[in-house]
Amino acid sequence: MNIQEIIAKKRDKLELTKDEIEYFIKEYTSGNITDYQAAALVMAIYINEMNDREITDLTLAMANSGDVLDLSELGEVVDKHSTGGVGDKITLVLMPIIASLGIPVAKMSGRGLGFTGGTIDKLESIPGYNTSITIEEFIENVKKINISLMGQTLNLAPADKKLYALRDTISCTESIPLIASSIMSKKIAAGANKIVIDVTCGSGAFMKTEEDAKSLAKVMTSIGKLAGKETVCIITPMDEPVGYAVGNTLEVIEAVDILKNKYIPKDVKNIIEELGANMLVLAKKVQTIEEGKKLIIENIKNGKAYEKFKELVQNQGGDISYIENTDKFEKAKYIVPIKAGKKGIISKIDAYKVGKLSCYLGAGRQTKEDSINPRVGFVFNKKVGETVEAEEIVGYIHADDMQKANEVLENNIVEIG
Amino acid sequence: MNIQEIIAKKRDKLELTKDEIEYFIKEYTSGNITDYQAAALVMAIYINEMNDREITDLTLAMANSGDVLDLSELGEVVDKHSTGGVGDKITLVLMPIIASLGIPVAKMSGRGLGFTGGTIDKLESIPGYNTSITIEEFIENVKKINISLMGQTLNLAPADKKLYALRDTISCTESIPLIASSIMSKKIAAGANKIVIDVTCGSGAFMKTEEDAKSLAKVMTSIGKLAGKETVCIITPMDEPVGYAVGNTLEVIEAVDILKNKYIPKDVKNIIEELGANMLVLAKKVQTIEEGKKLIIENIKNGKAYEKFKELVQNQGGDISYIENTDKFEKAKYIVPIKAGKKGIISKIDAYKVGKLSCYLGAGRQTKEDSINPRVGFVFNKKVGETVEAEEIVGYIHADDMQKANEVLENNIVEIG
Repeated sequence: MNIQEIIAKKRDKLELTKDEIEYFIKEYTSGNITDYQAAALVMAIYINEMNDREITDLTLAMANSGDVLDLSELGEVVDKHSTGGVGDKITLVLMPIIASLGIPVAKMSGRGLGFTGGTIDKLESIPGYNTSITIEEFIENVKKINISLMGQTLNLAPADKKLYALRDTISCTESIPLIASSIMSKKIAAGANKIVIDVTCGSGAFMKTEEDAKSLAKVMTSIGKLAGKETVCIITPMDEPVGYAVGNTLEVIEAVDILKNKYIPKDVKNIIEELGANMLVLAKKVQTIEEGKKLIIENIKNGKAYEKFKELVQNQGGDISYIENTDKFEKAKYIVPIKAGKKGIISKIDAYKVGKLSCYLGAGRQTKEDSINPRVGFVFNKKVGETVEAEEIVGYIHADDMQKANEVLENNIVEIG
Repeated sequence: MNIQEIIAKKRDKLELTKDEIEYFIKEYTSGNITDYQAAALVMAIYINEMNDREITDLTLAMANSGDVLDLSELGEVVDKHSTGGVGDKITLVLMPIIASLGIPVAKMSGRGLGFTGGTIDKLESIPGYNTSITIEEFIENVKKINISLMGQTLNLAPADKKLYALRDTISCTESIPLIASSIMSKKIAAGANKIVIDVTCGSGAFMKTEEDAKSLAKVMTSIGKLAGKETVCIITPMDEPVGYAVGNTLEVIEAVDILKNKYIPKDVKNIIEELGANMLVLAKKVQTIEEGKKLIIENIKNGKAYEKFKELVQNQGGDISYIENTDKFEKAKYIVPIKAGKKGIISKIDAYKVGKLSCYLGAGRQTKEDSINPRVGFVFNKKVGETVEAEEIVGYIHADDMQKANEVLENNIVEIG
């Protein structure tokens, strides 16, 4: 077998065999296939595509290219993944609910990059919370309290990391087969047997159109089926930020408020019901989605999910006094009101714009090496579709730098139709 | 301008601008664009193709990436190029004819690689012939005796060299737009204003089918037109070796015999008439192809072409006693007859097979660094279509190693139908 024949086959729109795909991933990871040969093959895959069988073989080859976490002693773990968004605190809310229903939650999460946030950054805004525990501690935690959320300390799917970095330099990031195999390879390497994926769709997501979101969902579902890892994809809108808060500490506070049943934003309710019910069905906890939705909301209302979240935080070294009294979280220096320019109905709060501005305020990273400011971001009072009076306060900018806050204010963040 | 946008455009089957193509070639040659980015773009070009305008801009950008030879003081030089073949001694025969007709011949030629031979290797089998003269000597020679044939000492089209080496490793050699621009960029950099190209077609050529040869001819003609370098392409068959001899010294001897008007193989006659007549028309020496063909044969018959060849050899330091008496050339140690296996009509003398076996005997190179043996090769007595008796000698293997000769004999070189 040699890489030139493999490149020529895909160049000519032919199907690659499992052996050829495994050979490519193995030899590329070990450096025997050069970046320029990989680049040529990736471009041929981008243009000529791969069928579901090829994508699955690619996914499994990448999943097996590094550490593979074995969670079998925990029973069948149902993992949850989101393709990313703005204000997306779903993991913080949903995973304690799931754990409180008796289903083991062993989840590795990522950090934010660009306009999207990451669960690990959010958890680290809780003083003391340790996201870098060992794998042994991770598994012990799940055995003990049914839940652990940690960062990706393992060398998961290094082939995917290498290919992803390459794709970024050769304009091949937006390929649906390649995105699907990238996501699924990491989930499979992280030990998931059953997976529920929130495929976000809209300005604040990587998939901008419903068509692309559907294609991605279809491909990931096929990979899951062919790889023997049952996968359900839910497409959720990401045109405006999820809930009201954007920014690390601000999102933790909102998640805690939801778990305390102070309020549940309508969009958050829809997402946790849909994802949660599907997880419960996959875990065979319930038979129907409707039953599942009821249990999800029930365990917020009865306080069990909130108690589970506190247990999680305490168990990983976090200071639960911050959870019990979120006023303890350090605030940004300036909290600047955003006012409606006129009376009317809110037509748009662009998630992408809010994500970029939030990143500009310091809540996110431009490169992987940047550090973040947990305090800054946005808290809105309103959602799209609500009516406002002229000069009514529709939200607040949380900033540590007044000049940046003023620059952000100049953007037409809340658009009124 | 940035390379990622350029890659994305070609990935999406869009037309690249002149500026974008020039930017790519300039920055790739200087190392600012990486090999993997170039590989991705080349694969996108291979699959999504380029139109004639883009190919012409690519050709000119590559031609201008290094030295560009200025032959304007010689008047309008008509260059000749062959896309390569087996037993192809056309340059050795035709260029002295053209020079003897008063048209300046300033031609840089290449070395053989793989199964194809190269004019420079053939010339170097003449004791004393210097192919590495300076550009000043080259031009002086043409001024003085109307002809000089030398090797490629200049840094011609380095972008093409770099891209060609890359294409070879990523299965992108067979792209007609890329082959066409590679050939034309070197011709244009070598100072040609008008170009006649022998597009060889068949088993012993790079273009295996007439369809591909026609496409390549069409693209090169378009490039010539758009670049203001009038170009005529002639498609000639390359299924059996050209003439009777294959191998460096052996081909020189055949070329000399032809120039001495001892004999002219029918295929050689057709090719020199076609190419030569077109060169004479381009040079405005004659008005019609028919007139041109007459002059070509006339200057063999009247001995002027042979005299010009001797002048060329002497002028570049070669020993003309070898030309006057070709028996002086050192022979291979073993000259082994090839006999017809049965009575019948010769159906095939496969040029590719002969080229590969000739290379195996030592006449060619597997890699650019290999040295060659000028003595070895083949001399056939017959061409395809001729009748033979059983056990009749149809040709000879010239070898310095009897074991290799015997191995070569085991191949069914001359097939009888």
